[in-house]
Amino acid sequence: MRGFALFDRVSKAFHDYPKASKMLVVVAVSGGGYVAYAEANSEPKLISSAPGIDQGENKKKKIVVLGTGWAGTSFLRNLKNPNYEVQVISPRNYFAFTPLLPSVTCGTVEARSIVEPIRNIVRKKNVDVQFSEAACLKIDAQNKKIYCRSNLENNLNGQEEFVVDYDYLIVAVGANVNTFNTPGVMENCHFLKEVEDAQKIRKTVIDCFERASLPTVSDEEKKRILHFAVVGGGPTGVEFAAELHDYVNEDLVKLYPGVKELVKITLLEAGDHILNMFDKRITAFAEEKFQRDGIDLKTGSMVVKVTDKEIFTKELKNGGEVSAMPYGMALWSTGIGTRPFIKDFMAQVGQANRRALATDEWLRVEGCDKVYAIGDCATINQRKVMEDIASIFRKADKDNSGTLTIKEYQEVIKDICERYPQVELYLKSKQMKNMVDLLKETADVSKGNAELNIEHFKTALSKVDSQMKNLPATGQVAAQQGVYLAKCFNRMEKCEKSPEGPLRFRGEGRHRFHPFRYKHLGQFAPLGGEQTAAQLPGDWVSIGHSSQWLWYSVYASKQVSWRNRALVVSDWGRRFIFGRDSSHLN
Amino acid sequence: MRGFALFDRVSKAFHDYPKASKMLVVVAVSGGGYVAYAEANSEPKLISSAPGIDQGENKKKKIVVLGTGWAGTSFLRNLKNPNYEVQVISPRNYFAFTPLLPSVTCGTVEARSIVEPIRNIVRKKNVDVQFSEAACLKIDAQNKKIYCRSNLENNLNGQEEFVVDYDYLIVAVGANVNTFNTPGVMENCHFLKEVEDAQKIRKTVIDCFERASLPTVSDEEKKRILHFAVVGGGPTGVEFAAELHDYVNEDLVKLYPGVKELVKITLLEAGDHILNMFDKRITAFAEEKFQRDGIDLKTGSMVVKVTDKEIFTKELKNGGEVSAMPYGMALWSTGIGTRPFIKDFMAQVGQANRRALATDEWLRVEGCDKVYAIGDCATINQRKVMEDIASIFRKADKDNSGTLTIKEYQEVIKDICERYPQVELYLKSKQMKNMVDLLKETADVSKGNAELNIEHFKTALSKVDSQMKNLPATGQVAAQQGVYLAKCFNRMEKCEKSPEGPLRFRGEGRHRFHPFRYKHLGQFAPLGGEQTAAQLPGDWVSIGHSSQWLWYSVYASKQVSWRNRALVVSDWGRRFIFGRDSSHLN
Repeated sequence: MRGFALFDRVSKAFHDYPKASKMLVVVAVSGGGYVAYAEANSEPKLISSAPGIDQGENKKKKIVVLGTGWAGTSFLRNLKNPNYEVQVISPRNYFAFTPLLPSVTCGTVEARSIVEPIRNIVRKKNVDVQFSEAACLKIDAQNKKIYCRSNLENNLNGQEEFVVDYDYLIVAVGANVNTFNTPGVMENCHFLKEVEDAQKIRKTVIDCFERASLPTVSDEEKKRILHFAVVGGGPTGVEFAAELHDYVNEDLVKLYPGVKELVKITLLEAGDHILNMFDKRITAFAEEKFQRDGIDLKTGSMVVKVTDKEIFTKELKNGGEVSAMPYGMALWSTGIGTRPFIKDFMAQVGQANRRALATDEWLRVEGCDKVYAIGDCATINQRKVMEDIASIFRKADKDNSGTLTIKEYQEVIKDICERYPQVELYLKSKQMKNMVDLLKETADVSKGNAELNIEHFKTALSKVDSQMKNLPATGQVAAQQGVYLAKCFNRMEKCEKSPEGPLRFRGEGRHRFHPFRYKHLGQFAPLGGEQTAAQLPGDWVSIGHSSQWLWYSVYASKQVSWRNRALVVSDWGRRFIFGRDSSHLN
Repeated sequence: MRGFALFDRVSKAFHDYPKASKMLVVVAVSGGGYVAYAEANSEPKLISSAPGIDQGENKKKKIVVLGTGWAGTSFLRNLKNPNYEVQVISPRNYFAFTPLLPSVTCGTVEARSIVEPIRNIVRKKNVDVQFSEAACLKIDAQNKKIYCRSNLENNLNGQEEFVVDYDYLIVAVGANVNTFNTPGVMENCHFLKEVEDAQKIRKTVIDCFERASLPTVSDEEKKRILHFAVVGGGPTGVEFAAELHDYVNEDLVKLYPGVKELVKITLLEAGDHILNMFDKRITAFAEEKFQRDGIDLKTGSMVVKVTDKEIFTKELKNGGEVSAMPYGMALWSTGIGTRPFIKDFMAQVGQANRRALATDEWLRVEGCDKVYAIGDCATINQRKVMEDIASIFRKADKDNSGTLTIKEYQEVIKDICERYPQVELYLKSKQMKNMVDLLKETADVSKGNAELNIEHFKTALSKVDSQMKNLPATGQVAAQQGVYLAKCFNRMEKCEKSPEGPLRFRGEGRHRFHPFRYKHLGQFAPLGGEQTAAQLPGDWVSIGHSSQWLWYSVYASKQVSWRNRALVVSDWGRRFIFGRDSSHLN
């Protein structure tokens, strides 16, 4: 064991105690080509353990979590099983309550009020959690290794690279912005995915006002500089436009008199309506409100190019005519894309050309082992009933008679509905009570002894799969996935022994866990002027005061600490008394 | 007047009404060589004015204020004379309460809580104030012009340059950091003069802790990264060291367990003691407290070079031996230097090789006309009594008898003391009541009819000038100068007619205004652990709770808005409840 001094030191630094003897560590010397690999010998190091207890049993399995957004953080908050050691790797050492990002752009809420350091969140847990501030560069699922690079750049040592291995990997890295390859967007537009983005926007808004106040600027140029364009009519774009409108009209007009007439906010949306994922009543209300507020709403307008001073749009309603629009600041908020290293990973596991990492209903990445993906970087690839129809029939037909009796059928209904949630959605859409109603359509099952053959069965279920839909890429979905996955890990040992999931139709026994099921708790779209539109479960639509945010943070997100809530409320109080700050600061 | 469309437009943009007809405007096209000069024609434009009132009388004089620090802002706050139009030019659109900057470095107070937008400060005033966010590049005192460049860099137009002319110029641009040409300081050290500096330090402290927590970092390297070096034992350096110590011990050790033993804070001071401008009791208290806290205090240690990882010091006590000290983050806080464009200006007005702009006792820059300098960029060049001794004697000797009677002498005592404040300081140092006591030393003036000749007079006053000292470069001095100058402008018309200053010993009549006189209101040095040392007027020394800051802001600085006070107190409350935030944010 001599000669491993380097590894020993590094290993000690890595873990509080040197149990992970199979770890491989790469020390990448700053900026250079020299890379020292030190493969740990399999011989375990002496640790103090009670005599008689096997070393192997004592060894904790290592979970690596990539990302500290909604998904990763909610996993960490809910993981309680002390039999794992966890390493979190993320370029951000904090969790951000992203629904308030648009408020940060205008200083309604301060950036630091919506963030919570991850180390704060995981401290005092009985689970051993280490955090490393680094970005993942590459996932090597075959060798169970993660290649990382520290994103710390100061007068220290250049960027450090290192390799981490895992027993379980949880990919929760979120998504990129998606420019749809529109030329000039990356270079000229702002985005609103990170806290830093919001801070940059806040600074740029003041930039524009200061710039327009310089003595040599012509009126025409002022108009251009004070034209704020928002591309994308989703909740983020709509909320930013509304926040900016309030900021300008409540605070900035007092400080920059004479510019009120010159400020213009335009919202560009390629579709026919803004907020198209919401109820039509909300869309209509928002569109009317924007018209009253003087926010210029251009639907059917597709951005095809952005230069440093102009946005080029194709008017879909107008025969595809391309027109140029001068602007001062532009926010691009149109959907999400895939991070490059996730694309590489997808190619590795045979998922090339997909938008996001496909997982099964238990959030396991398809095509590899012990890797889970949650949040915006993942999508659940719900199995189709029709793919498994033969297996389902065989499993249900316990006496191998080639036909199903209603009794046989009823015994597996629960498992079918759990394994294939689209069945329930289909029943609901057809206003049926249960699956027996569905079968009535194809066979005479009113009598208790009716029997179904496979063809009847296929016909009855043939349209069920049409009800499958992808979950939205929201924090709510991500948070629920994190909770779900943490609970699975918490009960891993128990469920290994007594599985609680549905029947394995194509295998033996039962699945260990119930599959993940999303529970929609409502969605909010703040529309400015203290008004928030809320679409709650059961299609209940409400338009009210924006303190609903607070309620939302309590009701729908256990993820927000009391610290954040108090700070946000105190920011609201500050704003109410003193207005928003317009100092030209980061 | 046709053909001046460009100028008209620009001029209109510049002023709310186009009165400043003699303005010269330079439009510098982005990044390019094309510069369009449009010299305004001297023919005034028509403005609606009551018939019979002369155009010239109606025209407001233009004051240009450079800088929005303590000096500039306090001038703006106190200017009430509506007969001036004011243009403020500063690269910062806000005033910052700099004594709290060290608290911002560790998140005890948020950056936005100690700033106030200038536009907020000047709005609702009856004085016409325009603000331009730009840096001054050059002062042309001969032609009364200021060359400026906007510091706004975004996707707009590159940096705009423009020229502003003035009737009165107030230079309040503060000072630079002073590296004393020590190699490597600019590249590797942090400074603490601006709010952005404090934000950068806050981010770097977390950088260091995150970096030291990466898996591949050796223990030795961790020690280096977590070594915080502070160069300069003045109030800023001392307070930063104390703040950092509290931050580490109260907050960071909980989040980064295991690093407590590795963190080291070193304070390097070239002199024998820290806080050498304070009372010895405070110095001793601070030195003892630092020793108890484990802050390594190295006096007699002069930094001679800084590389990216090491600080080289010359141990003055140790025969000048040079030693190297590895460090992770360094703060350089040793005195102030002169801004380059101020150096140029000093050469222009015959003040080359000085540290700061020399002014007379009325804060007028020596060697040019209608230019004032206040704050850290200026120093008052107090006239020596001995230079004027002949004139003083002549003025006092009203009957031209060649000797002064006590009566003659007493008539000018007040003016002498006002014009030459060193006289009073000298009397105080000698524990004399008045100037008659001083004369007693050289001549027999006990009898009412004693007479003094010029030689007696010279001998009596010969040591008086030794009491002259420069004012400290503090916000307090700057603020008082701003107030003083604003009051002069407020009463300009009145004092032109009936001057209220002391006799002009070398000229006729009286000076218009009383000369500026600094009133020391005490000085604070927060020492961490909620303790602040205060040295108050009358050498009263107090060491107490740091909420004295608030008291200070009320008592000594009318400059701090109630908004700032409320925000700072609320930040303290937040910190008290939730601790300091350690999210890696700007």
